[in-house]
Formats: sequence, C-alpha cells, structure tokens
Amino acid sequence: MELISGGICAAKGFTANGVHCGIRKNRAKRDLTLIYSEVAASAAAVYTTNLVKGAPLYVTKKHIADGKAQALICNSGNANTCNADGIEVAEQMSVLTAQALHIKPEDVIVASTGVIGQPLDITPIAGGIPGLVEGLGDHSDLAAEGIMTTDTKRKELAVSFLAGGKTCKIGGIAKGSGMIHPNMATMLVFLTTDCAISPAMLQKALSTDIQSTFNMVSVDGDTSTNDMVTVMANGLAGNQEITSEGPDFNAFMEALNTLTVYLCRCIAADGEGATKLLECKVSGAKSESVAKVVAKGVICSSLTKAAMFGADANWGRVLCAIGYSGADVDVAKVEVSFSSPKGEVLVCKDGAGVDFSEETAKEILLESEIDILIDLHDGESTATAWGCDLTYDYVKINGDYRT
Amino acid sequence: MELISGGICAAKGFTANGVHCGIRKNRAKRDLTLIYSEVAASAAAVYTTNLVKGAPLYVTKKHIADGKAQALICNSGNANTCNADGIEVAEQMSVLTAQALHIKPEDVIVASTGVIGQPLDITPIAGGIPGLVEGLGDHSDLAAEGIMTTDTKRKELAVSFLAGGKTCKIGGIAKGSGMIHPNMATMLVFLTTDCAISPAMLQKALSTDIQSTFNMVSVDGDTSTNDMVTVMANGLAGNQEITSEGPDFNAFMEALNTLTVYLCRCIAADGEGATKLLECKVSGAKSESVAKVVAKGVICSSLTKAAMFGADANWGRVLCAIGYSGADVDVAKVEVSFSSPKGEVLVCKDGAGVDFSEETAKEILLESEIDILIDLHDGESTATAWGCDLTYDYVKINGDYRT
Repeated sequence: MELISGGICAAKGFTANGVHCGIRKNRAKRDLTLIYSEVAASAAAVYTTNLVKGAPLYVTKKHIADGKAQALICNSGNANTCNADGIEVAEQMSVLTAQALHIKPEDVIVASTGVIGQPLDITPIAGGIPGLVEGLGDHSDLAAEGIMTTDTKRKELAVSFLAGGKTCKIGGIAKGSGMIHPNMATMLVFLTTDCAISPAMLQKALSTDIQSTFNMVSVDGDTSTNDMVTVMANGLAGNQEITSEGPDFNAFMEALNTLTVYLCRCIAADGEGATKLLECKVSGAKSESVAKVVAKGVICSSLTKAAMFGADANWGRVLCAIGYSGADVDVAKVEVSFSSPKGEVLVCKDGAGVDFSEETAKEILLESEIDILIDLHDGESTATAWGCDLTYDYVKINGDYRT
Repeated sequence: MELISGGICAAKGFTANGVHCGIRKNRAKRDLTLIYSEVAASAAAVYTTNLVKGAPLYVTKKHIADGKAQALICNSGNANTCNADGIEVAEQMSVLTAQALHIKPEDVIVASTGVIGQPLDITPIAGGIPGLVEGLGDHSDLAAEGIMTTDTKRKELAVSFLAGGKTCKIGGIAKGSGMIHPNMATMLVFLTTDCAISPAMLQKALSTDIQSTFNMVSVDGDTSTNDMVTVMANGLAGNQEITSEGPDFNAFMEALNTLTVYLCRCIAADGEGATKLLECKVSGAKSESVAKVVAKGVICSSLTKAAMFGADANWGRVLCAIGYSGADVDVAKVEVSFSSPKGEVLVCKDGAGVDFSEETAKEILLESEIDILIDLHDGESTATAWGCDLTYDYVKINGDYRT
C-alpha cells in the first residue's frame, strides 16, 4: 500500500470540480462540488444518527438504495435542513446534475453543509451546474474546497493497494471543523475507488471502518444533522469483483482505514479554532468497548481540551474524564503520559500523581500534535480517538456563526 | 414559605465560619470552612457518580452511615483526590475538627475542592482549625467564601416554612464554576435546617429533589470527582419529627426545592467564564424523562452555548441538540422561542424556521438571563435545565488552571 496524490480523482474514471455559484456571498469561496464516475459505481453510505436530518440525506438514501451511483453533488453555505421545501430542493439538485451529465437523477448522491434552517435557493445551484460539469477534470483540490465551511485546510488523500493482483486506488475528501461528534456516521466525507467491489461488501467495509475512525473523532460534542460518508467504487481497476471476505477484502479494508484515519486526523486538527491535534490512545483495556469509551470521554472533555490549549499538564482533568466516561475501569491501575515530538512524560501511575518536570511537560505540550497515552493495565484491548483543543477562536467562530 | 437572610446560619442552632489557613497562596482568599450544629443532626448526602472520587467522599459516607452528623469541615484549593494518602488526610481533618469542637470524629462531614492529584498538606488545616472554631458565629457569608474556587460570587439562601405548626428554616451555600455536570449527585452544596426530620426522610427528600435541580445543571459537561450535597437537620425548630410522607414532608420538599433551584441558578450563572444564565424550559413532552433529556441536551451543546454568548439567535443549534440528545422526539412538531426581560421571540415552529426580526432577537439575547423555550407538542410533561454561555474566559480560566 502506498500514499499517492490525486485525492478523489486518483482512482480511474473519476473526475471532479468545485466552483463558486453564489450561495455564499464571498466570491472567493467555492460553494458547489461535483464528483463524477465515467461508469456507474457501487455505492455505500452512512448517515448521522441525529433525529433532525438534512433533507439531502433522505434523498441520497433513496437514490443509493439500489447500491449504485454515478455522481455526487454537494453545496456548502446552507445545510438544507429544517426547511419545509428541503426534500424538493435536494431532488432538484439531483435532477439538474443528472440532466447536465446525461445520467439518471437516481444515480446522483446529494449533500449539503452550512447553516440550518434557512431556505436553500435552487437558483445559484442551477446557474452553477453547467460550468461545474464543463470544468470536470483532475480537480480533487477544487472539489475539496467546495465543501469547506469554517475549515481552514483542504482535506484529501489517496492510497493505492493490490487486490487480485491489480493495482486499485482509493481516494477521499472531507470537511469538518464544527458540530463534529459523529455518532454511527459522520461529517461529510466522500470516497472514490476504482476497486471492483459489490455494494454489500462496500457497505460492510464502510460501516465497519467508521466505528474506529470517524466515530472516534470529536471537535465539540455536537452531532451534526448532515453527517454523511459516501463511497463510490466504479471497478475500473479491473480486479475481480470483491464479493466476500478474504485477502482482497482485507487489502481494501486496510487501504480504506489508512485513508480514513488520515482524514480523521485532518478533521480533528482543523477543528473550529483548534491549535492542537489531540490523539488519545488507550491500551490495556479489558474490552474494545471500554477502550473506546475512555478514549472518546477524554477527547470530549472541555476541561482537558482547555488544559491542552494552555499546554498545562493537568492530568487530573484526564483522570476525571476517565472516571465519568461510563466505562468500567479500575481507576487505581490507571497510568497516563503525555507525548509529542518533543518527548514523553509520565504524569500519573496507579491512579495517583507522580513527580515530573513541569518544564519538560510544558515543552512537550507546546507542540501542535499531542498524544494522551492511557494504559488501564486491565487487559489487552486498545482504541484511539481524535480531537482538538478548546480555544478562544472556537468561541469566537460560534458566537456569531451566521453573520 | 418566605425567603429569609442568614444562609446556613438561619436555622436555629447552626453557626459557621470561613478563614484563610494557607492552602491557597492568595491570603485574601478564604480556604477553610466550618459548619457546626449545637446538637447532633440528622444527616443525608448524595455524591458524584464519577468512578474517580475524592477521598473526603469515602470518609463522609462512612461517617454519616448512621444518619447523624454535627459538623462539616471543607477546604478549597485542593480536591484531595488521586492522592495515595488521601483517606488518611481526610480522616485527620475530621479528627482535628472533632477535637476542637469536643465531638466525635464520626460526626464530622469532610469535603474538599480544588486541584486534583496534588497531595493535601494537613499542616495549614491543623493550624487553621482553632481560629476557625473560635470564630464560629452567624457567618454564613464567610463559610460560603471558604468553599469558592473559580466562583466569582457567593451562593447562599435561606427560606422559612411551616411544619406541624412550627416555623422551620432551611438554608444552604454552594460552590460551582467549573467541572459542573452533576450526575446523580452534584457540586458542593451544604444545607442546614432546624426542621425535625428523620434521616431516612431527609435522604428521601434530598435524593428526590436533586433529580430535577442539581442534576439538571451543566457548565461544561465535566462531572467532577468531588461533587457532594449534604444536609444536616438538627430539629431545633421544635416541630414534630417528620417520619413519613404527608403535609409536613411536602412543606419541607417545597422549601428545599425553592432553595436548591435558587442555588442551581447561582451555580449556572456563575459558571466559569459565563456572561449569561441559560434556562431551558421544555414543555409538551410525552414523558418527564424525554423533557429532561431534551433540556439537558440543549444546555450542554457547545454550539448553542457559544451562540448565546454571541447573542446570535441561531436556533438551528438548538434543533440540532434536540436531535442528538437521544430523546424520542417528533422533530416536525418542535417549537422554539427565546425569551428574556426584553421580550420573547418565536424562531421555529413545526420543526422549521419562521420569519422573525433579527434585531428584536438580538435585543432579547443581549440580556444576562436567557430562557430557551421548547414546546415538543407531544404531551404534558415538562422539565427545566440550567446552564451558561461558552466564553473566551472559560477557555482562559481552564487553559492554565493550575498556575
């Protein structure tokens, strides 16, 4: 397996584009993204568990019920959520896209991200689609830009791997930033692959993978209404279609996981207002579920997040979060260390503090990527969760998001 | 029932004091509090559900197992939590207090609040106790100051009520500020009453009351390791002891609830960095549990809290929080309004936005007490939760809490 460039256009037969169509006032900001496969692709998706769901999610669910899709249209700047005419507008988006591409509306995946509860005007989208289609090409970067909201960085990656002796590629783009606390599904992530894989196995791969990737990310504890991860697999790599578990499926899963872990780290690091990526690695847990609950509990703790912003080795915040996480843990066995490229410092052993150099700890915590290492000394299971620090800028961004 | 002055010293036979003994470096900050009843009192308590528990909680639990207590000692500046010798130090606190008051150590309630994981030196406490005892008097205010950490305001109240024809009084002090997300128990709250009530009925009253009061408060989603609410009832009001349900127990419950709701509001309004008290009132729920889950979900949403800081009527944040709260809600029926002394504005009806004046909404949200009114139009049950906005100062306070 190899990291490669090209993002969602790395896989054979996929082109993409992103333009400014006018949903956003800022003309420098792209707000409409298209991904297109030259042949129909197997499709799979997972969605937010929020009871309030964006209209595009209902439309997408219906469209890929047959396990097939060929294009994806997504706007930013408006979530098309809690609008009386939301479904109708989302359907219009798929119809207009299908007409321009000469495909069926039922083969179009629709997504939206942005403000909730403001009617989405179809006019700028209708006006933007012709140019969007005309400019389709090797433009994963433009597509990644078109889905950004308060994101400050593009998030894209591609990897190549072997399946059935053929080189397959899988690529993805993501948007994150705020309202990030996926639960059984996640923020917007669009994946493409030329690997031949049946819709059922594709869904299985995706549904399995997100449990230890996107569902382990939290920026602010708020589960969005529009979370969605989709993957389209067009089979153009020429490998024998993956229709069951086995070495090829494992290779696909491994490649998928490399991609999704990278995107998780991007999303957490670019969380609204974030200055630091936090990675909480739990080991020695008596079960995977205990490890996950602990890792996510720590990553979600406002007090831990604020302490990391201040580069303060306040490990009591970590212990406290472990204690209220709900996981069945023997707190008297817990060991905690902080680590970064500057080194590692043990701060807590057997559930109590140990002497450590505050100076060394500070130096370690001033880095932009911090690992919080927790050994529960109670078994063999592990889990990792990703988050970010809580900063003045998070408050600033969300104190007046709509204006 | 009447609101009266005197705090925890309003009830007959209770005196209190608070001094600076030297746990904190700032000599202007009191850090040791004592509450004393001239006769042994019925005692009840509820504790944090965090698996990591402060040592004083174990000691207090043991001491009031017989339903009796006569004094309460509490230090601030150090939580005496995650320390190898924590239990020993907490026991020493009760022994030294008992010696100075000529009572039994088993009749002393012990509490601590402050930094986790730093050994608590008994020396300043031992040095402070004689002066603390000598100065006992009508000093609820000094006692309330002695338990404050990042609190900016004293929190105390007393009410009088009739039970069995006798005037009874009940008073309380509280500390809150950060790490406030009580779960089955709460932050530090100390209540005193001269009402005669059996330990069993006192525990029943307290355990029932906190479900709709302290357990419905959240500042930051972090459930503390040292949460504790205690109540001592010394019976000096002369009423016939309350030993079962009935009119007297109801009068006691009503007085208790007036007191605890007031303290909840104080704690939320003085949350770390807070500029606004948020009260989320849910009505029309099909069950009380649905109402509670929705109210608490909204109060805990970082995005809603930040929007309130910015006086931004971003009701989509509220809808989103309702949707991921886990409550079984028909989102298409939800109605949301914001209200404050400046008026009320309807922002969402039938789960979708309605036209409203942003100017009016801004004016309403610029006030320091905001009600978020949610009608689920799905039944008759109601619930209220209290919280505060998320501000730059919350981040500042917790970015470098220990220094």
